[in-house]
Amino acid sequence: MLIDFQKAAEILKNSQNIYVISHQSPDGDTLGSGFALVYFLRMMGKRANLVCSDEIPEKFKFLAKWYADDDFEPECFVAVDIADKALFGEKTAPYAENIELCIDHHISNSLYARNTLLNPKASAACQVLFELFEFMGAEIDKKIATCLYTGLATDTGCFKFENTTPEAHFAAGKLISLGIEHFKINRKMFDEKSMARIKAEQILISGMEYFLDGRITMICITKDIMDKSGLDENEFEGVTSLTMQLEGVEVGITLKERSNGVYKVSMRSSGKANVSEICSLFGGGGHIRAAGCTVEGSLDEVKARLVSAVEKAVEALEN
Amino acid sequence: MLIDFQKAAEILKNSQNIYVISHQSPDGDTLGSGFALVYFLRMMGKRANLVCSDEIPEKFKFLAKWYADDDFEPECFVAVDIADKALFGEKTAPYAENIELCIDHHISNSLYARNTLLNPKASAACQVLFELFEFMGAEIDKKIATCLYTGLATDTGCFKFENTTPEAHFAAGKLISLGIEHFKINRKMFDEKSMARIKAEQILISGMEYFLDGRITMICITKDIMDKSGLDENEFEGVTSLTMQLEGVEVGITLKERSNGVYKVSMRSSGKANVSEICSLFGGGGHIRAAGCTVEGSLDEVKARLVSAVEKAVEALEN
Repeated sequence: MLIDFQKAAEILKNSQNIYVISHQSPDGDTLGSGFALVYFLRMMGKRANLVCSDEIPEKFKFLAKWYADDDFEPECFVAVDIADKALFGEKTAPYAENIELCIDHHISNSLYARNTLLNPKASAACQVLFELFEFMGAEIDKKIATCLYTGLATDTGCFKFENTTPEAHFAAGKLISLGIEHFKINRKMFDEKSMARIKAEQILISGMEYFLDGRITMICITKDIMDKSGLDENEFEGVTSLTMQLEGVEVGITLKERSNGVYKVSMRSSGKANVSEICSLFGGGGHIRAAGCTVEGSLDEVKARLVSAVEKAVEALEN
Repeated sequence: MLIDFQKAAEILKNSQNIYVISHQSPDGDTLGSGFALVYFLRMMGKRANLVCSDEIPEKFKFLAKWYADDDFEPECFVAVDIADKALFGEKTAPYAENIELCIDHHISNSLYARNTLLNPKASAACQVLFELFEFMGAEIDKKIATCLYTGLATDTGCFKFENTTPEAHFAAGKLISLGIEHFKINRKMFDEKSMARIKAEQILISGMEYFLDGRITMICITKDIMDKSGLDENEFEGVTSLTMQLEGVEVGITLKERSNGVYKVSMRSSGKANVSEICSLFGGGGHIRAAGCTVEGSLDEVKARLVSAVEKAVEALEN
């Protein structure tokens, strides 16, 4: 059932011994909203823990600076930033059937919880939570503000992406006014790279291929490249934005070899070409600006098929 | 004389035939506030032109989309984002002695204008202008909002830097609510790079030197490197942020060869080390996080002297 702030506030007020659940492969928004809610509930005198199927990545551990696991039997389960049961992950999957409250911003939310506080126009789950706290007249402290800001900033690419709403800016302004170290958070989230990551990006950029005068770019992360680099496979994750930095690029293609002859493909668009349509030609899909598919064959075959399909789409833009 | 919004509004209301002046080597804030003010004055029925000693860089030409030079004799000169007479540049220098109103946010403003509307706490001159327009009860349209947002975003690194105030976020939120294409502006300002720029960055990153386990990084832009790359010298401008992307780096040093044996040095700090102090050892200065100096000698000598000084400062941080 979709509920409003009033009802969500009542649920929180009437609950004790709460597990707040973040989604698997946790990001800044699910952890930001998760820790913010735990800190808030503890401030209200309740017992609350954050649970997540996966380890908290090193990058986000600062959110847990004021946190230690408590030992109690949970009576109430609240999910944050989790659009569907499938996203809980192994460890927290058993709770997925018994979620009292879900706080989310994904339009795709499958309404699996008994009560869902959903704002599909919000830039982040942290935005929804921020507004709930405001509705409740809660005094947000610096640690809660740090968590909420982190979710807002990470889900909007530091207020750079199209999903950045006026309300996200208004919330960020209020959070900053509480004296959080937004500069340090942003440096950690957006600027800092490990030496290994810098090397991985170097390898990919120097091997980038260009088509139609740079209107299409492509990087191929083969097992061979990964092996020869001596770098961990993780260093080659999340690199699709590299394909989009060239001025004038319409579509960026990232190929990643899964097993011999199987390639996972990510496509990004500057906004004109519809990469969801292109990927659907290969049995995939997604959004206009970001989509994916899986293609099998030899590397040369796979590249040729993809480039040919993308070229057609990009050439059609001129008509 | 420092003035308030009331007085600044009166000056604008009582003026006709206005030249709005942006500083030399124009950036997003001086052009954003310049064009915003010109569009605003024209909306008020006045004649107004933007004048600048240098060409408008390609990157910022979209701000002039609704602009054409008018032909009139100027009676009133308004400077935006210009802290000192020395920053007008050759073409507009003659007007510097006769500035009726300066709108600025630099604490270093030398108060050369007859009237100065200054808010040294504002993130950008565009912030000051936004607040002036609000004070005047002006209806800001989409083109003015586009200009103001661009100045705000560029001067704060898309709301990433320490100088991002709550008010900057509040203003950005209001500007976005007017329907501007902030996504496209941000892509142009922060993500897009020319092929030549991508190559220049590749060259610099692959030649980066590391000291004290990566707590110090250094890039050297020698004439030899520039010549061999075949790239325009401009492609090697504004690259100091490359030295700061390594996780754990405390000080990034960028050396640029001016003429044989003369090196311009830029230093950046993650916040702990005071690079202004380090640069003052070489007769330079600046701020804690960003400073510069000029050092003469052979490349090896210059590098050794700089690294030695920075190592001492970084090692002292542990005490």
